[in-house]
Amino acid sequence: MDPVKITILGSGSALPTKNNFHASQVLEMRGKSYMIDCGEGTQIKIRQYKVNIARLDNIFVSHLHSDHCIGIVGLISTLAMLGRKNTLTIHAHKDLEAIMSPMINYFTDDDSFKVIFNPINPSKKVMIYEDKGLTVTTIPLKHRVPSCGFLFEERQRERHLIKSMIEAFEIPVKDLKSIKKGADFIDKNGFLVKNERLTTPADKPRKYAYISDTLYTEKIISQIEGVDCLYHEATFLEQDRERAKETFHTTALQAATIAQKANVEKLILGHYSARYKDHEPFIKEAKKIFDNTILAKDGLRFEL
Amino acid sequence: MDPVKITILGSGSALPTKNNFHASQVLEMRGKSYMIDCGEGTQIKIRQYKVNIARLDNIFVSHLHSDHCIGIVGLISTLAMLGRKNTLTIHAHKDLEAIMSPMINYFTDDDSFKVIFNPINPSKKVMIYEDKGLTVTTIPLKHRVPSCGFLFEERQRERHLIKSMIEAFEIPVKDLKSIKKGADFIDKNGFLVKNERLTTPADKPRKYAYISDTLYTEKIISQIEGVDCLYHEATFLEQDRERAKETFHTTALQAATIAQKANVEKLILGHYSARYKDHEPFIKEAKKIFDNTILAKDGLRFEL
Repeated sequence: MDPVKITILGSGSALPTKNNFHASQVLEMRGKSYMIDCGEGTQIKIRQYKVNIARLDNIFVSHLHSDHCIGIVGLISTLAMLGRKNTLTIHAHKDLEAIMSPMINYFTDDDSFKVIFNPINPSKKVMIYEDKGLTVTTIPLKHRVPSCGFLFEERQRERHLIKSMIEAFEIPVKDLKSIKKGADFIDKNGFLVKNERLTTPADKPRKYAYISDTLYTEKIISQIEGVDCLYHEATFLEQDRERAKETFHTTALQAATIAQKANVEKLILGHYSARYKDHEPFIKEAKKIFDNTILAKDGLRFEL
Repeated sequence: MDPVKITILGSGSALPTKNNFHASQVLEMRGKSYMIDCGEGTQIKIRQYKVNIARLDNIFVSHLHSDHCIGIVGLISTLAMLGRKNTLTIHAHKDLEAIMSPMINYFTDDDSFKVIFNPINPSKKVMIYEDKGLTVTTIPLKHRVPSCGFLFEERQRERHLIKSMIEAFEIPVKDLKSIKKGADFIDKNGFLVKNERLTTPADKPRKYAYISDTLYTEKIISQIEGVDCLYHEATFLEQDRERAKETFHTTALQAATIAQKANVEKLILGHYSARYKDHEPFIKEAKKIFDNTILAKDGLRFEL
């Protein structure tokens, strides 16, 4: 099975630092790339970490705070300069188009690639994107401005053919497509072969949930139940729990609580406040509740 | 004499790399800071290199290509978040205000500090800024869009008092200000003391010229004649001279030729194309013509 790859381009928050740039990550699945958030410096990190964006056609923006979206202007400007042709769709709150279009139009030529803004309503659970490989659904969050996370769900995969059986029943190639989808087979003598004799079950579709920025909220749990990996913001530590509440952010302990309650496979913490020089306390705090936790850092790559 | 300090925040060009961010530098003189250009990632470099921007009230933008100005949005957004109060003036081609204001207004609160756009005409030699310490004058350049360099000229400095003479003539404190400016002194008996007996000459005012982006042009020479330091773009090497011409840029050898003809003290090369991994050939090429050349790199600090 081809892996789903995720690269963290930026793991910082509002104040970017040398080691923790503004929020951005790229998910690669079935040959396509999807960007989630695009803070300042994203185009630099793409080059630094050699992220493949040849098939990046969609950017998903969680909310319109500058640390989650201002890298879009520079990225588009550079892609235009490099001669990109494919349309790029930006899924974001409707205001993004109004505030960003003047700069984008100014820095790109008229014959440059097309940029489409797909306005989303962050306060509703809606499937905002789908292609052959996956669907993307918004996860409403609680932040100072309208904000949503994203659930990336791989589509149902095909069942695996049992080669020896396919040969034994002399099944024509034209029938394989439907058999992989679960159809039975009827041979030339009218004999029915049940699908279970010809295939083994499909791999489980993979799911990735991105949650940033938000106050601790259990409302998201039903949507992210059992995902292979949950990225959850942990801007603060418990010692600054009050500050987290005031600014509508989450602590590492709270993120781990969500991971545990949602029964996810793995938790990634990120979006650290610049006040913390050392991130080890984040993992210590989270592991008290949810052991399979890792810390995001700029350049981190992992697979589902 | 308090030094004039210059910090290179970004020494790259259109395609930023891990080591060479978009163009930006900060000049510090007589307690104030002045930013020249502000490409993507400038706010990150400010934090990384611990540049003092408490008294940064002016940003000078050479031209409206994205690698020279898109960092302004993030910088302002962050300064607003940190509670800055002082007005910030951006000296740039008039279009900047139209394209950037929507984002700046969106990402800052109504009670945030004031941002003033001072529209400049890059095709004219004009003094666009002055304060107690210095004047800033545009230097028209030849690029694909209206573009100018900047000449930072320290104002005439005061003459140095000869302490022993001031004491010997029992000169009151109230007269020292005019004496430092060159006035003679008349004592209570009507005896005239020539200024030359009371002071030694003032230090020479310092000058810094910033030239980026431009085709090789000797028209700038009269304006930058004899400056203490010339920063000149060197996007290409001579081996790519044709490419330099096509894209309205300069080679290292051409930059050195300008430095020699303008009889400057020191030359700094920067704004390297991302195609060159190694910058040593730039210095080799320039030194054939102008020996006192150094290479800009992100984080380089030097004094005039």
